[in-house]
Amino acid sequence: MSEKTIPYKIYLEESEMPKQWYNVRADMKNKPAPLLNPATLQPMTYEELRPVFCDELIKQELDDTTPYIDIPQEIRDFYKMYRPSPLVRAYCLEKKLDTPAKIYYKFEGNNTSGSHKLNSAIAQAYYAKKQGLKGVTTETGAGQWGTALSMACAYLELDCKVYMVKVSYEQKPFRREVMRTYGASVTPSPSETTAVGRKILAAHPGTTGSLGCAISEAVEAATSQEGYRYVLGSVLNQVLLHQTVIGLETKAALDKYDITPDIIIGCAGGGSNLGGLISPFMGEVLRGEKNYRFIAVEPASCPSFTRGKFAYDFCDTGMVCPLAKMYTLGSGFIPSANHAGGLRYHGMSSILSQLYHDGLMEAVAVEQTSVFQAAEQFARVEGILPAPESSHAIKVAIDEALKCKETGEEKTIVFGLTGTGYFDMTAYQKFNDGEMRDSIPTDEDLQAGFDGIPRFQGNEF
Amino acid sequence: MSEKTIPYKIYLEESEMPKQWYNVRADMKNKPAPLLNPATLQPMTYEELRPVFCDELIKQELDDTTPYIDIPQEIRDFYKMYRPSPLVRAYCLEKKLDTPAKIYYKFEGNNTSGSHKLNSAIAQAYYAKKQGLKGVTTETGAGQWGTALSMACAYLELDCKVYMVKVSYEQKPFRREVMRTYGASVTPSPSETTAVGRKILAAHPGTTGSLGCAISEAVEAATSQEGYRYVLGSVLNQVLLHQTVIGLETKAALDKYDITPDIIIGCAGGGSNLGGLISPFMGEVLRGEKNYRFIAVEPASCPSFTRGKFAYDFCDTGMVCPLAKMYTLGSGFIPSANHAGGLRYHGMSSILSQLYHDGLMEAVAVEQTSVFQAAEQFARVEGILPAPESSHAIKVAIDEALKCKETGEEKTIVFGLTGTGYFDMTAYQKFNDGEMRDSIPTDEDLQAGFDGIPRFQGNEF
Repeated sequence: MSEKTIPYKIYLEESEMPKQWYNVRADMKNKPAPLLNPATLQPMTYEELRPVFCDELIKQELDDTTPYIDIPQEIRDFYKMYRPSPLVRAYCLEKKLDTPAKIYYKFEGNNTSGSHKLNSAIAQAYYAKKQGLKGVTTETGAGQWGTALSMACAYLELDCKVYMVKVSYEQKPFRREVMRTYGASVTPSPSETTAVGRKILAAHPGTTGSLGCAISEAVEAATSQEGYRYVLGSVLNQVLLHQTVIGLETKAALDKYDITPDIIIGCAGGGSNLGGLISPFMGEVLRGEKNYRFIAVEPASCPSFTRGKFAYDFCDTGMVCPLAKMYTLGSGFIPSANHAGGLRYHGMSSILSQLYHDGLMEAVAVEQTSVFQAAEQFARVEGILPAPESSHAIKVAIDEALKCKETGEEKTIVFGLTGTGYFDMTAYQKFNDGEMRDSIPTDEDLQAGFDGIPRFQGNEF
Repeated sequence: MSEKTIPYKIYLEESEMPKQWYNVRADMKNKPAPLLNPATLQPMTYEELRPVFCDELIKQELDDTTPYIDIPQEIRDFYKMYRPSPLVRAYCLEKKLDTPAKIYYKFEGNNTSGSHKLNSAIAQAYYAKKQGLKGVTTETGAGQWGTALSMACAYLELDCKVYMVKVSYEQKPFRREVMRTYGASVTPSPSETTAVGRKILAAHPGTTGSLGCAISEAVEAATSQEGYRYVLGSVLNQVLLHQTVIGLETKAALDKYDITPDIIIGCAGGGSNLGGLISPFMGEVLRGEKNYRFIAVEPASCPSFTRGKFAYDFCDTGMVCPLAKMYTLGSGFIPSANHAGGLRYHGMSSILSQLYHDGLMEAVAVEQTSVFQAAEQFARVEGILPAPESSHAIKVAIDEALKCKETGEEKTIVFGLTGTGYFDMTAYQKFNDGEMRDSIPTDEDLQAGFDGIPRFQGNEF
């Protein structure tokens, strides 16, 4: 161990910031399975994906051999506005827990989108701009991704059309207004602006929408207009790739002080933040250089890893998107209304799914009341009010630190603190008022998520 | 000029962070006038202030000779959790404006209170704890100060009672919930918990409260309970003293790169953030070492400097607090409902008032629609969604940069970006919808602010 004093916050110099993303697929012996065309059940090709996605992003999506991919200078300049993010030594939390463990967190919340989402939003917007497109479309639920994309598009003067799940549009007006301030058009979904939206509205006049429906509208809006493409904030390989800037910065900061983590923890919804955090460390494991424990934390109400099946499934509930092989609860699964909106997804990144399947990563599911207890404890000693999603990682980091207290082990724990909870105060209010409840799906609930999905070889649920 | 490349964000090392606050009064030839006891019209003494304020804070309040005051180690440790704050080079804004000016901003928003308020909250809570008190009371309007104090008290395990103006309590539930998450009790004011509250409720059953009323309740709550004191988030000398950590860090960061500012700009409500930012630079001017332009920016709807009178007046609308000599619109002045809640104060720091009176500082009043235009422009290129208060400084920084564009001068402009606007989206929505209006008081409106205030030598309005 080094004798250097570890500051509360380790910041890299600009010159130390990553110049390339790291593509962990290049070091995986068992590659993640390819996306399949649902019509042919054959791997999706570059040409098939072009009407929907930007050319350069498709290349990144399909590339499982190139280990390092240059970050264009324009994206690196944008990163400098809000990065490097600090790697924080949680001295106050350690003291409060009275643990011999050393706890660090990589804090991605110090930007107006409030989360790590901006890391991929600027990359996707940049490639769209470079391709000469007029704009991009996307969907958003809770609104972090939509906010991040709006910010990136405002910076690049690119048009941004966001389809926001109607219930969120109405219940989260502040997120909506942040997006509008950044010049995005925000449409409550389902809407009259698309054929699929009109069809859904005709069939279900009073519907408040769903993420699956918003995806369908955003894809239609992209493919039916000249000069537009669709972009997505998680799950895809390209998004995980962009998010490796988190892990690369974390590793550089740790290396600077000769710190080797024992355990690396992150919350997992679509998997991009966790994948981004662990990728450079996982690369060392895959190359046989090092060994770490990786823990994915998911909500007990939406337990893709711990109770899902490893199979091909649709990425969207509307079953219009390609099929991905992943841990899934079934694309028909409807998670209960827990407050970590960003973790309410039936599936999981194909990359992480393969790594988990191969025994390279652990997963644990936690209940939301215990998550908010951890969030409150963390806020009071570390000063940061965390997002409900991020608080899943806090919960397990605290649990691991308390285990060290019992055993006396001085383990080094690193976790990803993906964002702030400023737009989640309705959830905190429920917790403060003692009205928060846990909701764990039954086995029957879980099986119902697979109802109606066409069966074929590779998805025997 | 140095040949060093200026990074996007200049961070000090922890070892470079200030170890002392700077008390600008020590270098002022014309000292700010003392607080007066409204009953005797004599300067308030240490003993007279003890029932209300913490002992050590009274000493700081009254000390106009000691230039540097040590920051206790415990406060410096807390500062390390969210400080140093970055001094940001606004490269993207400069490019957008196509100006030869070099623009820097000191960004105080990267903490959960969302503003600079935490700098004084932790100091005041610390001295209360050190004195062996059980807790502190305060009032809050928009909620930034209450949030900051709640965070500081949670960290020190000190009880925190916040009286929140009832209309804000109801209309800003998110701020309220942040305070509750930090363990503060938040009471809508006026309330049944104090004699003054009951009296006001009896007289005005449907009232939604006012800051003046909340102050009265918080003071009563502090003085009527064993082990409690009252704390305040602005206006007072002690608060400005604590906020000099902003200016000291700014100066250290500029010195590190051999940068000398020409113009230093900040928004001014009670004056503590602006005073804190400019103090170390003003000290150089007062000692005859350097020369800078200082610009205070205030809302045209509440123009204390530009249209107020330099006279003794009450600090509160209820006329129970001591008298302070300051630029004032009259403690009976009711500003129109502009959206920069933190700047809606009739008076101004006595220190800044004296400096302005002595011609050492300029002031300018700006209208809120132009402020939000500047805020939007800034957000889109610099990525940060600013608080309405902070955006007053942005507006004038942009104006000065555009003047440089006309004249070709390469001036260096530094401004204080005090906080983020995440809890101000209702105001942004008004702006986005084109429904924001300006409201400038008439001379008659202004004169009415002085109605009913007792006249004596020193306050001939």
